[in-house]
Amino acid sequence: MTGERITLKENERIDDLQRNNLVIIQNPGGFCFGMDAVLLTGFAGEVKGERLLDLGTGTGIIPILMSAKTECSKLIGLEIQKESADMASRSVRLNGIGDRVEIIEGDIKKADELFPLSSFDVITCNPPYMIGKHGIVNPESPKAIARHEILCEFEDIARVSAGLLKPGGKLFLVHRPFRLSEIFVTLTKYGLEPKRLRLVYPFADHEPNMALIEAVRGGKKRMTVEKPLIIFKEKDVYTDEVATLYGF
Amino acid sequence: MTGERITLKENERIDDLQRNNLVIIQNPGGFCFGMDAVLLTGFAGEVKGERLLDLGTGTGIIPILMSAKTECSKLIGLEIQKESADMASRSVRLNGIGDRVEIIEGDIKKADELFPLSSFDVITCNPPYMIGKHGIVNPESPKAIARHEILCEFEDIARVSAGLLKPGGKLFLVHRPFRLSEIFVTLTKYGLEPKRLRLVYPFADHEPNMALIEAVRGGKKRMTVEKPLIIFKEKDVYTDEVATLYGF
Repeated sequence: MTGERITLKENERIDDLQRNNLVIIQNPGGFCFGMDAVLLTGFAGEVKGERLLDLGTGTGIIPILMSAKTECSKLIGLEIQKESADMASRSVRLNGIGDRVEIIEGDIKKADELFPLSSFDVITCNPPYMIGKHGIVNPESPKAIARHEILCEFEDIARVSAGLLKPGGKLFLVHRPFRLSEIFVTLTKYGLEPKRLRLVYPFADHEPNMALIEAVRGGKKRMTVEKPLIIFKEKDVYTDEVATLYGF
Repeated sequence: MTGERITLKENERIDDLQRNNLVIIQNPGGFCFGMDAVLLTGFAGEVKGERLLDLGTGTGIIPILMSAKTECSKLIGLEIQKESADMASRSVRLNGIGDRVEIIEGDIKKADELFPLSSFDVITCNPPYMIGKHGIVNPESPKAIARHEILCEFEDIARVSAGLLKPGGKLFLVHRPFRLSEIFVTLTKYGLEPKRLRLVYPFADHEPNMALIEAVRGGKKRMTVEKPLIIFKEKDVYTDEVATLYGF
Protein backbone atom coordinates (compact mmCIF):
# COMPACT_ATOMS: atom_id res chain seq x y z
CA MET A 1 0.00 0.00 0.00
CA THR A 2 1.62 3.19 -1.12
CA GLY A 3 -1.42 5.41 -1.43
CA GLU A 4 -2.94 8.21 0.55
CA ARG A 5 -4.84 7.98 3.83
CA ILE A 6 -8.57 7.59 3.36
CA THR A 7 -11.52 7.44 5.73
CA LEU A 8 -13.65 4.33 6.21
CA LYS A 9 -17.40 4.76 6.60
CA GLU A 10 -19.57 2.84 9.02
CA ASN A 11 -19.51 -0.95 8.47
CA GLU A 12 -16.71 -0.75 5.90
CA ARG A 13 -13.56 -2.80 6.17
CA ILE A 14 -10.29 -3.09 4.25
CA ASP A 15 -9.52 -6.51 2.73
CA ASP A 16 -6.08 -7.65 1.57
CA LEU A 17 -6.11 -8.87 -2.07
CA GLN A 18 -2.99 -11.02 -1.61
CA ARG A 19 -1.36 -9.53 -4.69
CA ASN A 20 1.11 -6.65 -5.07
CA ASN A 21 0.00 -5.41 -1.62
CA LEU A 22 -3.33 -4.36 -3.12
CA VAL A 23 -6.33 -3.85 -0.83
CA ILE A 24 -10.03 -3.15 -1.31
CA ILE A 25 -12.69 -1.41 0.78
CA GLN A 26 -15.89 -3.43 1.17
CA ASN A 27 -19.05 -3.30 3.23
CA PRO A 28 -20.06 -6.83 4.24
CA GLY A 29 -23.67 -5.64 4.45
CA GLY A 30 -23.55 -4.65 0.75
CA PHE A 31 -22.20 -6.71 -2.12
CA CYS A 32 -18.68 -8.07 -1.67
CA PHE A 33 -16.68 -9.29 -4.64
CA GLY A 34 -16.75 -13.00 -5.28
CA MET A 35 -14.52 -15.64 -6.77
CA ASP A 36 -16.14 -14.84 -10.14
CA ALA A 37 -14.33 -11.52 -10.42
CA VAL A 38 -10.99 -12.98 -9.38
CA LEU A 39 -11.29 -15.85 -11.88
CA LEU A 40 -12.17 -13.36 -14.61
CA THR A 41 -8.97 -11.40 -13.99
CA GLY A 42 -7.04 -14.68 -14.16
CA PHE A 43 -8.78 -15.57 -17.44
CA ALA A 44 -8.13 -12.13 -18.96
CA GLY A 45 -4.59 -12.48 -17.63
CA GLU A 46 -1.91 -10.42 -19.24
CA VAL A 47 -4.09 -9.11 -22.06
CA LYS A 48 -2.35 -6.42 -24.09
CA GLY A 49 -3.73 -2.95 -24.72
CA GLU A 50 -3.75 0.67 -23.66
CA ARG A 51 -7.28 1.23 -22.41
CA LEU A 52 -9.46 -1.11 -20.32
CA LEU A 53 -13.08 -0.53 -19.25
CA ASP A 54 -14.83 -2.58 -16.55
CA LEU A 55 -18.60 -2.41 -16.89
CA GLY A 56 -20.43 -2.52 -13.54
CA THR A 57 -17.27 -2.43 -11.49
CA GLY A 58 -18.92 -2.58 -8.05
CA THR A 59 -16.25 -1.85 -5.48
CA GLY A 60 -13.58 -1.88 -8.20
CA ILE A 61 -12.15 -5.36 -7.73
CA ILE A 62 -11.53 -5.99 -11.44
CA PRO A 63 -9.68 -2.78 -12.41
CA ILE A 64 -7.70 -2.90 -9.16
CA LEU A 65 -6.55 -6.49 -9.77
CA MET A 66 -6.05 -5.91 -13.50
CA SER A 67 -3.80 -2.94 -12.75
CA ALA A 68 -1.34 -5.50 -11.39
CA LYS A 69 -1.79 -8.01 -14.24
CA THR A 70 -1.74 -5.86 -17.37
CA GLU A 71 0.29 -2.96 -18.65
CA CYS A 72 -2.80 -0.99 -19.67
CA SER A 73 -2.09 2.68 -19.07
CA LYS A 74 -5.72 3.51 -18.33
CA LEU A 75 -8.25 1.30 -16.50
CA ILE A 76 -11.74 2.72 -16.00
CA GLY A 77 -14.40 1.22 -13.76
CA LEU A 78 -18.00 2.25 -14.48
CA GLU A 79 -20.53 1.80 -11.66
CA ILE A 80 -24.10 3.03 -11.35
CA GLN A 81 -24.44 2.63 -7.58
CA LYS A 82 -23.14 5.72 -5.78
CA GLU A 83 -22.01 3.93 -2.60
CA SER A 84 -20.09 1.24 -4.51
CA ALA A 85 -18.48 3.79 -6.84
CA ASP A 86 -17.42 5.83 -3.80
CA MET A 87 -15.85 2.80 -2.13
CA ALA A 88 -14.08 1.90 -5.39
CA SER A 89 -12.70 5.45 -5.72
CA ARG A 90 -11.35 5.41 -2.18
CA SER A 91 -9.81 1.95 -2.77
CA VAL A 92 -8.02 3.32 -5.82
CA ARG A 93 -6.59 6.22 -3.78
CA LEU A 94 -5.72 3.91 -0.88
CA ASN A 95 -3.72 1.74 -3.29
CA GLY A 96 -1.98 4.74 -4.82
CA ILE A 97 -2.97 3.73 -8.36
CA GLY A 98 -5.02 6.83 -9.21
CA ASP A 99 -2.69 7.65 -12.11
CA ARG A 100 -3.92 4.57 -14.00
CA VAL A 101 -7.28 3.60 -12.49
CA GLU A 102 -10.34 5.84 -12.60
CA ILE A 103 -13.83 5.12 -11.24
CA ILE A 104 -16.76 6.79 -12.96
CA GLU A 105 -20.32 6.78 -11.65
CA GLY A 106 -22.66 6.04 -14.52
CA ASP A 107 -25.07 3.73 -16.29
CA ILE A 108 -23.86 0.79 -18.39
CA LYS A 109 -26.78 1.31 -20.76
CA LYS A 110 -25.39 4.77 -21.60
CA ALA A 111 -21.72 3.80 -21.62
CA ASP A 112 -21.59 4.36 -25.36
CA GLU A 113 -22.49 8.01 -24.73
CA LEU A 114 -19.99 8.44 -21.89
CA PHE A 115 -16.92 7.33 -23.84
CA PRO A 116 -15.77 7.72 -27.46
CA LEU A 117 -16.80 4.84 -29.73
CA SER A 118 -14.08 2.31 -30.63
CA SER A 119 -11.86 3.67 -27.87
CA PHE A 120 -11.11 0.59 -25.70
CA ASP A 121 -8.75 -2.34 -26.28
CA VAL A 122 -10.28 -4.41 -23.50
CA ILE A 123 -13.65 -4.53 -21.78
CA THR A 124 -14.30 -6.71 -18.73
CA CYS A 125 -17.66 -7.44 -17.14
CA ASN A 126 -18.98 -9.53 -14.25
CA PRO A 127 -22.64 -8.80 -14.93
CA PRO A 128 -25.81 -9.64 -13.02
CA TYR A 129 -26.51 -13.30 -13.77
CA MET A 130 -30.17 -13.71 -12.99
CA ILE A 131 -32.99 -12.99 -15.42
CA GLY A 132 -35.79 -10.73 -14.18
CA LYS A 133 -36.74 -9.87 -10.65
CA HIS A 134 -38.42 -13.05 -9.52
CA GLY A 135 -38.19 -13.56 -5.77
CA ILE A 136 -36.45 -10.26 -5.04
CA VAL A 137 -37.63 -8.61 -1.83
CA ASN A 138 -35.86 -5.29 -2.32
CA PRO A 139 -35.00 -4.50 -5.96
CA GLU A 140 -33.13 -1.36 -4.91
CA SER A 141 -30.65 -3.19 -2.67
CA PRO A 142 -27.02 -3.26 -3.86
CA LYS A 143 -26.99 -7.06 -3.72
CA ALA A 144 -30.13 -7.38 -5.85
CA ILE A 145 -28.78 -4.90 -8.43
CA ALA A 146 -25.45 -6.73 -8.62
CA ARG A 147 -27.09 -10.15 -9.03
CA HIS A 148 -30.27 -9.58 -11.06
CA GLU A 149 -30.85 -7.91 -14.41
CA ILE A 150 -32.67 -4.99 -12.83
CA LEU A 151 -30.76 -1.98 -14.18
CA CYS A 152 -29.30 -3.61 -17.28
CA GLU A 153 -29.67 -6.81 -19.30
CA PHE A 154 -27.05 -8.88 -21.04
CA GLU A 155 -28.03 -7.40 -24.38
CA ASP A 156 -27.11 -3.91 -23.10
CA ILE A 157 -23.65 -5.16 -22.22
CA ALA A 158 -23.14 -6.71 -25.65
CA ARG A 159 -24.44 -3.62 -27.42
CA VAL A 160 -22.30 -1.06 -25.61
CA SER A 161 -19.23 -3.32 -25.71
CA ALA A 162 -19.55 -3.66 -29.48
CA GLY A 163 -19.68 0.14 -29.74
CA LEU A 164 -16.84 0.89 -27.35
CA LEU A 165 -14.29 -1.75 -28.35
CA LYS A 166 -11.79 -1.05 -31.09
CA PRO A 167 -11.97 -3.52 -34.00
CA GLY A 168 -10.13 -6.60 -32.72
CA GLY A 169 -10.68 -5.45 -29.13
CA LYS A 170 -11.49 -8.09 -26.53
CA LEU A 171 -14.44 -8.54 -24.20
CA PHE A 172 -13.95 -10.75 -21.13
CA LEU A 173 -17.04 -12.00 -19.33
CA VAL A 174 -17.93 -14.29 -16.48
CA HIS A 175 -21.48 -15.65 -16.46
CA ARG A 176 -23.57 -18.66 -15.57
CA PRO A 177 -23.49 -21.76 -17.82
CA PHE A 178 -27.28 -21.94 -18.00
CA ARG A 179 -27.21 -18.82 -20.19
CA LEU A 180 -24.36 -19.94 -22.46
CA SER A 181 -26.35 -20.33 -25.66
CA GLU A 182 -28.17 -17.02 -25.18
CA ILE A 183 -24.83 -15.28 -24.51
CA PHE A 184 -23.23 -16.67 -27.68
CA VAL A 185 -26.27 -15.71 -29.75
CA THR A 186 -26.35 -12.16 -28.37
CA LEU A 187 -22.60 -11.58 -28.70
CA THR A 188 -22.70 -12.81 -32.30
CA LYS A 189 -25.64 -10.53 -33.06
CA TYR A 190 -23.45 -7.55 -32.12
CA GLY A 191 -20.39 -8.72 -34.04
CA LEU A 192 -18.56 -9.95 -30.95
CA GLU A 193 -17.32 -13.41 -31.87
CA PRO A 194 -16.88 -15.86 -28.96
CA LYS A 195 -13.29 -17.04 -29.28
CA ARG A 196 -12.50 -18.68 -25.96
CA LEU A 197 -14.54 -20.49 -23.31
CA ARG A 198 -13.45 -21.96 -20.03
CA LEU A 199 -15.93 -23.68 -17.76
CA VAL A 200 -15.43 -23.56 -14.01
CA TYR A 201 -16.33 -26.71 -12.08
CA PRO A 202 -16.51 -26.59 -8.25
CA PHE A 203 -15.33 -30.23 -8.23
CA ALA A 204 -14.16 -32.43 -11.11
CA ASP A 205 -17.36 -34.51 -11.00
CA HIS A 206 -19.86 -31.62 -10.68
CA GLU A 207 -21.71 -29.47 -13.18
CA PRO A 208 -19.91 -26.20 -13.95
CA ASN A 209 -21.19 -23.12 -12.13
CA MET A 210 -19.36 -20.41 -14.07
CA ALA A 211 -18.37 -19.76 -17.66
CA LEU A 212 -15.42 -17.54 -18.58
CA ILE A 213 -15.81 -16.13 -22.08
CA GLU A 214 -13.58 -14.10 -24.39
CA ALA A 215 -15.15 -12.46 -27.43
CA VAL A 216 -13.40 -10.41 -30.11
CA ARG A 217 -15.00 -7.54 -31.99
CA GLY A 218 -15.07 -8.64 -35.62
CA GLY A 219 -13.32 -11.94 -34.84
CA LYS A 220 -13.51 -14.89 -37.21
CA LYS A 221 -15.57 -17.95 -36.39
CA ARG A 222 -13.84 -20.84 -34.60
CA MET A 223 -13.33 -20.89 -30.86
CA THR A 224 -11.21 -22.66 -28.28
CA VAL A 225 -12.81 -24.46 -25.37
CA GLU A 226 -10.11 -24.77 -22.75
CA LYS A 227 -9.39 -27.47 -20.19
CA PRO A 228 -11.73 -27.43 -17.18
CA LEU A 229 -10.98 -25.04 -14.32
CA ILE A 230 -11.57 -27.04 -11.16
CA ILE A 231 -11.88 -25.07 -7.92
CA PHE A 232 -11.52 -27.65 -5.15
CA LYS A 233 -9.41 -30.80 -5.16
CA GLU A 234 -11.16 -31.84 -1.95
CA LYS A 235 -13.54 -30.16 0.48
CA ASP A 236 -12.17 -26.71 1.44
CA VAL A 237 -8.86 -27.32 -0.39
CA TYR A 238 -8.22 -25.29 -3.54
CA THR A 239 -6.57 -26.86 -6.57
CA ASP A 240 -3.07 -25.56 -7.22
CA GLU A 241 -4.28 -23.39 -10.09
CA VAL A 242 -6.84 -21.56 -7.96
CA ALA A 243 -4.47 -21.25 -5.00
CA THR A 244 -1.93 -19.61 -7.32
CA LEU A 245 -4.55 -17.23 -8.68
CA TYR A 246 -5.39 -16.14 -5.16
CA GLY A 247 -1.73 -15.64 -4.36
CA PHE A 248 -1.60 -18.23 -1.60
CA MET B 1 -27.90 -62.09 -33.35
CA THR B 2 -31.29 -63.40 -34.33
CA GLY B 3 -31.47 -62.07 -37.88
CA GLU B 4 -31.17 -63.54 -41.32
CA ARG B 5 -28.01 -64.67 -43.10
CA ILE B 6 -26.45 -61.96 -45.20
CA THR B 7 -23.47 -61.84 -47.54
CA LEU B 8 -20.33 -59.85 -46.82
CA LYS B 9 -18.65 -58.04 -49.70
CA GLU B 10 -14.92 -57.78 -50.25
CA ASN B 11 -13.01 -56.13 -47.39
CA GLU B 12 -16.08 -56.04 -45.13
CA ARG B 13 -16.06 -57.43 -41.60
CA ILE B 14 -18.62 -57.93 -38.84
CA ASP B 15 -17.88 -56.12 -35.55
CA ASP B 16 -19.50 -56.97 -32.21
CA LEU B 17 -21.16 -53.91 -30.59
CA GLN B 18 -20.95 -55.38 -27.06
CA ARG B 19 -24.60 -54.65 -26.40
CA ASN B 20 -27.69 -56.88 -26.76
CA ASN B 21 -25.67 -59.12 -29.13
CA LEU B 22 -25.81 -56.39 -31.76
CA VAL B 23 -23.28 -56.40 -34.59
CA ILE B 24 -22.37 -54.07 -37.46
CA ILE B 25 -20.86 -54.55 -40.89
CA GLN B 26 -17.95 -52.23 -41.65
CA ASN B 27 -15.27 -51.83 -44.26
CA PRO B 28 -12.01 -50.75 -42.62
CA GLY B 29 -10.98 -49.14 -45.90
CA GLY B 30 -14.04 -46.90 -45.74
CA PHE B 31 -15.31 -44.93 -42.76
CA CYS B 32 -15.76 -46.90 -39.55
CA PHE B 33 -17.89 -45.56 -36.74
CA GLY B 34 -16.04 -43.77 -33.97
CA MET B 35 -16.41 -43.14 -30.27
CA ASP B 36 -18.41 -40.01 -31.21
CA ALA B 37 -21.41 -42.04 -32.34
CA VAL B 38 -21.32 -44.31 -29.31
CA LEU B 39 -21.11 -41.35 -26.92
CA LEU B 40 -24.02 -39.70 -28.70
CA THR B 41 -26.22 -42.74 -28.12
CA GLY B 42 -25.22 -42.66 -24.45
CA PHE B 43 -26.07 -38.95 -24.26
CA ALA B 44 -29.45 -39.43 -25.99
CA GLY B 45 -29.92 -42.38 -23.68
CA GLU B 46 -33.43 -43.54 -23.04
CA VAL B 47 -35.13 -40.66 -24.83
CA LYS B 48 -38.85 -41.18 -25.19
CA GLY B 49 -40.77 -41.05 -28.46
CA GLU B 50 -42.22 -43.06 -31.29
CA ARG B 51 -40.17 -42.03 -34.29
CA LEU B 52 -36.42 -41.42 -34.51
CA LEU B 53 -34.44 -40.21 -37.53
CA ASP B 54 -30.66 -40.40 -37.80
CA LEU B 55 -29.29 -37.92 -40.35
CA GLY B 56 -26.20 -39.20 -42.17
CA THR B 57 -26.30 -42.62 -40.59
CA GLY B 58 -23.21 -44.03 -42.32
CA THR B 59 -23.13 -47.76 -41.61
CA GLY B 60 -26.10 -47.38 -39.25
CA ILE B 61 -24.33 -47.42 -35.89
CA ILE B 62 -26.68 -44.90 -34.26
CA PRO B 63 -30.08 -46.41 -35.12
CA ILE B 64 -28.75 -49.91 -34.42
CA LEU B 65 -27.49 -48.94 -30.95
CA MET B 66 -30.52 -46.74 -30.25
CA SER B 67 -32.82 -49.66 -31.05
CA ALA B 68 -31.49 -51.24 -27.86
CA LYS B 69 -31.65 -48.06 -25.76
CA THR B 70 -35.03 -46.56 -26.60
CA GLU B 71 -38.53 -47.87 -27.08
CA CYS B 72 -39.02 -45.94 -30.32
CA SER B 73 -41.15 -48.06 -32.62
CA LYS B 74 -39.54 -46.70 -35.76
CA LEU B 75 -35.88 -45.73 -36.23
CA ILE B 76 -34.86 -44.46 -39.67
CA GLY B 77 -31.28 -43.94 -40.82
CA LEU B 78 -30.78 -41.63 -43.81
CA GLU B 79 -27.53 -41.99 -45.75
CA ILE B 80 -26.48 -40.47 -49.08
CA GLN B 81 -23.59 -42.84 -49.80
CA LYS B 82 -24.85 -45.96 -51.54
CA GLU B 83 -22.17 -48.32 -50.19
CA SER B 84 -22.66 -47.19 -46.58
CA ALA B 85 -26.46 -47.36 -46.84
CA ASP B 86 -26.15 -50.87 -48.26
CA MET B 87 -23.92 -52.00 -45.40
CA ALA B 88 -26.32 -50.42 -42.89
CA SER B 89 -29.29 -52.22 -44.45
CA ARG B 90 -27.52 -55.56 -44.29
CA SER B 91 -26.51 -54.90 -40.65
CA VAL B 92 -30.16 -54.25 -39.81
CA ARG B 93 -31.18 -57.55 -41.38
CA LEU B 94 -28.28 -59.37 -39.77
CA ASN B 95 -29.44 -58.11 -36.36
CA GLY B 96 -33.05 -59.09 -37.06
CA ILE B 97 -34.35 -55.60 -36.23
CA GLY B 98 -35.85 -54.80 -39.62
CA ASP B 99 -39.29 -54.41 -38.07
CA ARG B 100 -38.12 -51.25 -36.26
CA VAL B 101 -35.05 -49.98 -38.10
CA GLU B 102 -35.11 -48.83 -41.72
CA ILE B 103 -32.23 -47.46 -43.79
CA ILE B 104 -33.08 -45.01 -46.58
CA GLU B 105 -30.62 -43.83 -49.20
CA GLY B 106 -31.03 -40.08 -49.62
CA ASP B 107 -29.72 -36.56 -49.18
CA ILE B 108 -29.88 -34.77 -45.80
CA LYS B 109 -30.45 -31.50 -47.62
CA LYS B 110 -33.70 -32.89 -49.01
CA ALA B 111 -34.79 -34.78 -45.88
CA ASP B 112 -37.65 -32.34 -45.40
CA GLU B 113 -39.04 -33.51 -48.76
CA LEU B 114 -38.54 -37.21 -48.02
CA PHE B 115 -40.52 -37.28 -44.76
CA PRO B 116 -43.66 -35.49 -43.53
CA LEU B 117 -42.96 -32.25 -41.65
CA SER B 118 -43.24 -32.39 -37.83
CA SER B 119 -43.22 -36.18 -37.93
CA PHE B 120 -40.27 -37.13 -35.68
CA ASP B 121 -39.92 -37.15 -31.88
CA VAL B 122 -36.15 -37.52 -31.99
CA ILE B 123 -33.43 -36.68 -34.50
CA THR B 124 -29.82 -37.73 -34.01
CA CYS B 125 -26.83 -36.61 -36.05
CA ASN B 126 -23.09 -37.17 -36.04
CA PRO B 127 -22.34 -34.72 -38.84
CA PRO B 128 -19.15 -33.90 -40.73
CA TYR B 129 -17.13 -31.66 -38.40
CA MET B 130 -14.74 -29.87 -40.69
CA ILE B 131 -15.53 -26.68 -42.57
CA GLY B 132 -14.81 -26.66 -46.29
CA LYS B 133 -12.57 -28.91 -48.30
CA HIS B 134 -9.13 -27.64 -47.37
CA GLY B 135 -6.49 -30.31 -47.64
CA ILE B 136 -8.76 -33.01 -49.03
CA VAL B 137 -7.11 -35.17 -51.67
CA ASN B 138 -10.23 -37.02 -52.80
CA PRO B 139 -13.49 -35.16 -52.02
CA GLU B 140 -15.52 -38.14 -53.26
CA SER B 141 -14.06 -40.63 -50.79
CA PRO B 142 -16.41 -41.94 -48.08
CA LYS B 143 -14.03 -40.75 -45.35
CA ALA B 144 -13.85 -37.21 -46.73
CA ILE B 145 -17.65 -37.02 -47.07
CA ALA B 146 -18.15 -38.24 -43.51
CA ARG B 147 -15.63 -35.80 -42.06
CA HIS B 148 -15.91 -32.62 -44.13
CA GLU B 149 -18.88 -30.45 -45.02
CA ILE B 150 -18.78 -31.48 -48.66
CA LEU B 151 -22.33 -32.70 -49.27
CA CYS B 152 -24.06 -30.79 -46.47
CA GLU B 153 -23.30 -28.02 -44.00
CA PHE B 154 -24.38 -27.64 -40.39
CA GLU B 155 -27.02 -25.14 -41.40
CA ASP B 156 -28.69 -27.81 -43.58
CA ILE B 157 -28.91 -30.11 -40.58
CA ALA B 158 -30.47 -27.42 -38.40
CA ARG B 159 -32.92 -26.41 -41.10
CA VAL B 160 -34.23 -29.88 -41.92
CA SER B 161 -34.30 -30.90 -38.25
CA ALA B 162 -36.44 -27.87 -37.40
CA GLY B 163 -38.84 -28.89 -40.16
CA LEU B 164 -38.98 -32.59 -39.34
CA LEU B 165 -39.18 -32.50 -35.53
CA LYS B 166 -42.52 -32.29 -33.80
CA PRO B 167 -42.88 -29.23 -31.52
CA GLY B 168 -41.00 -30.21 -28.36
CA GLY B 169 -39.06 -32.85 -30.30
CA LYS B 170 -35.38 -33.35 -29.51
CA LEU B 171 -32.26 -33.08 -31.63
CA PHE B 172 -29.13 -34.84 -30.36
CA LEU B 173 -25.81 -33.83 -31.90
CA VAL B 174 -22.14 -34.56 -31.45
CA HIS B 175 -19.74 -31.98 -32.83
CA ARG B 176 -16.40 -30.31 -32.23
CA PRO B 177 -16.06 -27.69 -29.48
CA PHE B 178 -14.39 -25.19 -31.79
CA ARG B 179 -17.74 -24.73 -33.54
CA LEU B 180 -19.84 -24.43 -30.37
CA SER B 181 -20.83 -20.80 -30.73
CA GLU B 182 -21.69 -21.17 -34.41
CA ILE B 183 -23.78 -24.27 -33.60
CA PHE B 184 -25.75 -22.48 -30.87
CA VAL B 185 -26.35 -19.49 -33.13
CA THR B 186 -27.55 -21.65 -36.03
CA LEU B 187 -29.78 -23.88 -33.89
CA THR B 188 -31.38 -20.81 -32.30
CA LYS B 189 -31.93 -19.26 -35.74
CA TYR B 190 -34.09 -22.27 -36.62
CA GLY B 191 -36.03 -22.34 -33.35
CA LEU B 192 -34.05 -25.26 -31.92
CA GLU B 193 -33.12 -24.15 -28.41
CA PRO B 194 -29.92 -25.67 -26.98
CA LYS B 195 -31.01 -27.20 -23.68
CA ARG B 196 -28.17 -29.51 -22.68
CA LEU B 197 -24.43 -29.58 -23.30
CA ARG B 198 -21.85 -32.09 -22.21
CA LEU B 199 -18.21 -31.62 -23.10
CA VAL B 200 -16.02 -34.67 -23.65
CA TYR B 201 -12.44 -34.42 -22.40
CA PRO B 202 -9.89 -37.12 -23.41
CA PHE B 203 -8.21 -36.58 -20.03
CA ALA B 204 -9.30 -34.46 -17.06
CA ASP B 205 -6.56 -31.90 -17.70
CA HIS B 206 -6.98 -31.61 -21.49
CA GLU B 207 -9.12 -29.44 -23.73
CA PRO B 208 -12.40 -31.11 -24.72
CA ASN B 209 -12.47 -32.70 -28.18
CA MET B 210 -16.21 -33.34 -28.50
CA ALA B 211 -19.42 -31.57 -27.55
CA LEU B 212 -22.68 -33.46 -27.01
CA ILE B 213 -25.67 -31.18 -27.54
CA GLU B 214 -29.42 -31.58 -27.03
CA ALA B 215 -31.72 -28.98 -28.59
CA VAL B 216 -35.50 -28.82 -28.33
CA ARG B 217 -37.78 -27.48 -31.06
CA GLY B 218 -39.48 -24.44 -29.55
CA GLY B 219 -37.74 -24.94 -26.18
CA LYS B 220 -37.44 -22.10 -23.68
CA LYS B 221 -34.13 -20.40 -23.02
CA ARG B 222 -31.99 -21.75 -20.18
CA MET B 223 -29.71 -24.73 -20.59
CA THR B 224 -27.87 -27.26 -18.47
CA VAL B 225 -24.15 -27.76 -18.86
CA GLU B 226 -23.42 -31.17 -17.40
CA LYS B 227 -20.42 -32.52 -15.54
CA PRO B 228 -17.43 -33.30 -17.75
CA LEU B 229 -17.31 -36.63 -19.57
CA ILE B 230 -13.74 -37.84 -19.21
CA ILE B 231 -12.64 -40.69 -21.51
CA PHE B 232 -9.41 -41.99 -20.01
CA LYS B 233 -8.44 -42.17 -16.35
CA GLU B 234 -4.93 -43.08 -17.43
CA LYS B 235 -3.28 -43.95 -20.72
CA ASP B 236 -5.33 -46.66 -22.50
CA VAL B 237 -7.64 -47.15 -19.49
CA TYR B 238 -11.23 -45.96 -19.87
CA THR B 239 -13.03 -44.24 -17.01
CA ASP B 240 -15.81 -46.33 -15.47
CA GLU B 241 -18.47 -44.27 -17.24
CA VAL B 242 -17.03 -44.91 -20.69
CA ALA B 243 -16.31 -48.58 -19.98
CA THR B 244 -19.97 -49.01 -18.97
CA LEU B 245 -21.14 -47.25 -22.13
CA TYR B 246 -19.10 -49.65 -24.24
CA GLY B 247 -20.51 -52.58 -22.33
CA PHE B 248 -17.19 -53.78 -20.99
